[in-house]
Amino acid sequence: MSDPITDQIHEMGRKARAAAHKLSLLTTAEKDTILRAMAAGLRDASTEILTENAKDILAGEAKGLSSAMLDRLRLDEARLEAVAAALEHVATLPDPVGQVLDDWDRPNGIRIEQVRVPIGTIGIIYESRPNVTADAAALCFKTGNATILRGGSEAIHSNRAIATAIQAGGEKTGLPADSVQLVPFTDRQSVAAMAGMDQWLDLIIPRGGKGLIETVVSLARMPVIKHYDGICHLYAAEKADQEMAVKLTVDSKTQKPGVCNALETLLIDETIATEFLPKVAAALRAKEVELRGCEKSLAILPDLIPATEEDWGTEYLEKILSIKIVSGIDEAIAHINTHGSHHTDCIVTTDIAQAEVFLHSIDSACVMHNVSTRFADGGEFGFGAEIGISTDKLHARGPMGLRELTSYQYRVRGAGQTKV
Amino acid sequence: MSDPITDQIHEMGRKARAAAHKLSLLTTAEKDTILRAMAAGLRDASTEILTENAKDILAGEAKGLSSAMLDRLRLDEARLEAVAAALEHVATLPDPVGQVLDDWDRPNGIRIEQVRVPIGTIGIIYESRPNVTADAAALCFKTGNATILRGGSEAIHSNRAIATAIQAGGEKTGLPADSVQLVPFTDRQSVAAMAGMDQWLDLIIPRGGKGLIETVVSLARMPVIKHYDGICHLYAAEKADQEMAVKLTVDSKTQKPGVCNALETLLIDETIATEFLPKVAAALRAKEVELRGCEKSLAILPDLIPATEEDWGTEYLEKILSIKIVSGIDEAIAHINTHGSHHTDCIVTTDIAQAEVFLHSIDSACVMHNVSTRFADGGEFGFGAEIGISTDKLHARGPMGLRELTSYQYRVRGAGQTKV
Repeated sequence: MSDPITDQIHEMGRKARAAAHKLSLLTTAEKDTILRAMAAGLRDASTEILTENAKDILAGEAKGLSSAMLDRLRLDEARLEAVAAALEHVATLPDPVGQVLDDWDRPNGIRIEQVRVPIGTIGIIYESRPNVTADAAALCFKTGNATILRGGSEAIHSNRAIATAIQAGGEKTGLPADSVQLVPFTDRQSVAAMAGMDQWLDLIIPRGGKGLIETVVSLARMPVIKHYDGICHLYAAEKADQEMAVKLTVDSKTQKPGVCNALETLLIDETIATEFLPKVAAALRAKEVELRGCEKSLAILPDLIPATEEDWGTEYLEKILSIKIVSGIDEAIAHINTHGSHHTDCIVTTDIAQAEVFLHSIDSACVMHNVSTRFADGGEFGFGAEIGISTDKLHARGPMGLRELTSYQYRVRGAGQTKV
Repeated sequence: MSDPITDQIHEMGRKARAAAHKLSLLTTAEKDTILRAMAAGLRDASTEILTENAKDILAGEAKGLSSAMLDRLRLDEARLEAVAAALEHVATLPDPVGQVLDDWDRPNGIRIEQVRVPIGTIGIIYESRPNVTADAAALCFKTGNATILRGGSEAIHSNRAIATAIQAGGEKTGLPADSVQLVPFTDRQSVAAMAGMDQWLDLIIPRGGKGLIETVVSLARMPVIKHYDGICHLYAAEKADQEMAVKLTVDSKTQKPGVCNALETLLIDETIATEFLPKVAAALRAKEVELRGCEKSLAILPDLIPATEEDWGTEYLEKILSIKIVSGIDEAIAHINTHGSHHTDCIVTTDIAQAEVFLHSIDSACVMHNVSTRFADGGEFGFGAEIGISTDKLHARGPMGLRELTSYQYRVRGAGQTKV
């Protein structure tokens, strides 16, 4: 596979690897100084960045992008300042690199240390939001990784301007060349080229819709950390504090419906359904949520929209909730493990023993007892920053902060020990 | 993609997922009882297993397999007893599942716990050694994972008999059905079917040659943990204890040349080359090691075989060693990071500061100071058991024990906290 685009992207990969070796040796203080200089670089270039962003907006309008898409694309002084401030915030976070995870001595006298080190080189493939260019680069840089960023065509002018600004700012204080590279192409061939170069990229993180993730997964030879759907459940158990269950359902569903940790399906224990369903339905309807119920729910509230089998596997990302009455915790667990997306699921109950059964039986990244599903988030977990919420089980699961952007290495020290 | 083989393997996947949910709830004591019963099952079926093994040996002889291959395939009473004893040993190891990795409270009162949980379902694709059937199944089972085993055609009779025996033994003490399944096919289509079913398999571990690993990597949609080459280096630095450097070179190269942590390239600091090279060459030649040297080495020892560029990237796996004289630690580090396979690399020196530079600069799973590379091993690390040595950087790097066969989950407990 040799063509000009593939060749150029492989050359970027080779340079990223060389940069990664330099990055792994920077001290935390050096990295934090560079992060602040990247923020200054963004501020210095704000006029250029906003001018370039205006080109993307114009092109997007001409292409007929939705107003939601255009809003995601749009930068202004305030948004750009928020991006710069986020880089400075990353500079204040603890650096996981160098942390000793474990150390022990062996009977033969060798000492083994397991130490966090950077992963190396990370490809980020993303869609419309231009702030990802700076955010992802900063998190990867803080953890000593070189990045190759490949954004979508809608934001290409903005992305170029942002990448140039953070490189220029960083280089003033010692950012190694090629630490942060932006792919100049936005076609599919560039994704394929990145996905194929496992000698140069240790990890790819796709950030965007299911189609993008699927494409990367099917092409990638290196590990991919995926951020798929959140089909999150709340189970109002027999012994739920019903007032709390109403409050948590409403918060989980309506506080921000378009995100992956928002609630999609409410499971109600049949012992409380007659009393609880009308209460929760009224509270949800007051927030304009469309309710789709199973047959048993319809027997209690005939004006629900009948749910189909498809509803149990749907991430609505809007003010729609599916409701199912279950015979007890076993059916609740089986339903969640079968139809859920292993993201975040909650039980509401005052029965601690039953809560523990739930927490131990649900095969999801985050399992919750009496907490809104919206708390499944790197910020809410106190990670300080988040690259995403992994729906994978390997390496990183759930909210991914800086720690999850590191690998480890064994350092073994001895005095001439041999096997023979 | 619907064909009878794919359909049957997908059905095995569906069953493995169901088994995994049951396995995640077994206690350590229950699992250890089952492991001992699996060992008993192997002993009870020893006659059948050896009879079936004899069929594989006959077929292998007819196919003209090498004597080394036939030896790997062959079972006898003693080898089968060792396999059974290994299962009992796994029963004595600590269970990582349930270990709390971290826990903390947030200012809003929610408590977050990060707990080790099983990965879920693991596919093992392997070649000729029939003991892998029992070993891999035991390690995955101990960590609460369901396995789908797909062995090579050479060992199919042995593998079937072993899988049947451990299932029969385990089921007497409560092994959930379908916890350990053996794929009845040995064609390539069965590998493709496993690699494609990311809804049913959370991880694939290929164990075998480079060709097998490449095939799995190119097809797999789920994470793959790879065990590629070990192109291991030893750098005899300026301030090396030369006697120790000779001893470590000989041990690393000759104690067991056919394994991934054996030495392949010796780097010698030019300041000591005139004195050190003849000494180490004599010791290696006494062990019948073929030596291939760079130009500078040839100037000192003209009877070395000239090394080509290809030698620096070759895992010989036999009594051959490439030798290069380097100008100092920087060239040594650059050579290793460029030509090595990021497996295991060692510096021999009495200069502690320089050793630390080496340990921090080499991008390999195991970096060593004054220790034989042969100690890069789960057994030598004290892991008690090893599924392999990962050359990946994500999830597991270096020797993989039981811990590396687990994932984690966040358990969040609250009192009705909402975002609004």
